[in-house]
Amino acid sequence: MSVHTNGQDYLSMAINLATENVHNAGGPFGAVVVTPDGQVFEGVNRVTASNDPSAHAEVVAIRTAAAALENFDLSGCVLYTSCEPCPMCLATSLWARISKVYYAADRHDAAKAGFDDAVFYEYFEENSNRALMPVQHFRDEAVEHLKPFEAWDHMDTRIDY
Amino acid sequence: MSVHTNGQDYLSMAINLATENVHNAGGPFGAVVVTPDGQVFEGVNRVTASNDPSAHAEVVAIRTAAAALENFDLSGCVLYTSCEPCPMCLATSLWARISKVYYAADRHDAAKAGFDDAVFYEYFEENSNRALMPVQHFRDEAVEHLKPFEAWDHMDTRIDY
Repeated sequence: MSVHTNGQDYLSMAINLATENVHNAGGPFGAVVVTPDGQVFEGVNRVTASNDPSAHAEVVAIRTAAAALENFDLSGCVLYTSCEPCPMCLATSLWARISKVYYAADRHDAAKAGFDDAVFYEYFEENSNRALMPVQHFRDEAVEHLKPFEAWDHMDTRIDY
Repeated sequence: MSVHTNGQDYLSMAINLATENVHNAGGPFGAVVVTPDGQVFEGVNRVTASNDPSAHAEVVAIRTAAAALENFDLSGCVLYTSCEPCPMCLATSLWARISKVYYAADRHDAAKAGFDDAVFYEYFEENSNRALMPVQHFRDEAVEHLKPFEAWDHMDTRIDY
């Protein structure tokens, strides 16, 4: 892979991965993570094939890149994906410190194909109600909610991220 | 594990996992997925230990449950977590069809311990600017953005989710 390949070519690569994946019992999504020095790491959707709800193409590409580079921090890397990333994939990209994301199809194209990305985006909007999946803060004096952070604070060998 | 264990006990279990994980080179986060019939699946944060930006406790617990149950759909399951789930973990829970989430510490406790959950929540709010990580829609006639969905539409053996 030439480092001179441009963004359009990386998007076409992601789209081709997505299309091939449909014929390999996967969902219609593909992605590539490209490092600043032109290394390319691929991902395809394996949710149903692997029984892994988190195995979206973007997450798979990020996990593959981070494992290969032996670094949880992908700063400077660019993510190209066949379809607009859902909130899970965007947040995973944030944690991975991905620098920029390009996508081809959008959440409305995905909705037409039967996927819930658009609904899940609404879940994160300000003042959205969370009836779809209630999230409840449980605070009771019997629950030592700060205990893990206190242990963390006292751990000299911790790796911050 | 008795099916009569109550939510407070599951939260304490998640907190204990989180605390133990600090002493095992992991982050201060733990979670359990509990099935309607009382099966318990554990997860702890292995981001730095595994070089996997997606390896938050909640995601690990969901992956473990889905793999063990051989089902990407965890409808009816409840997620108990030591700390308020970040957007990645919430969105993963949505895709996994988790029915309800309980948490102990909150995003502000996490921020005090040095974690970016609160910042990443803002990224998803309506009208937030996305300077932290720009996301760009690339549309060009040379990029066949609908090709994967067309393949999906024609695939009789596809598994919808």
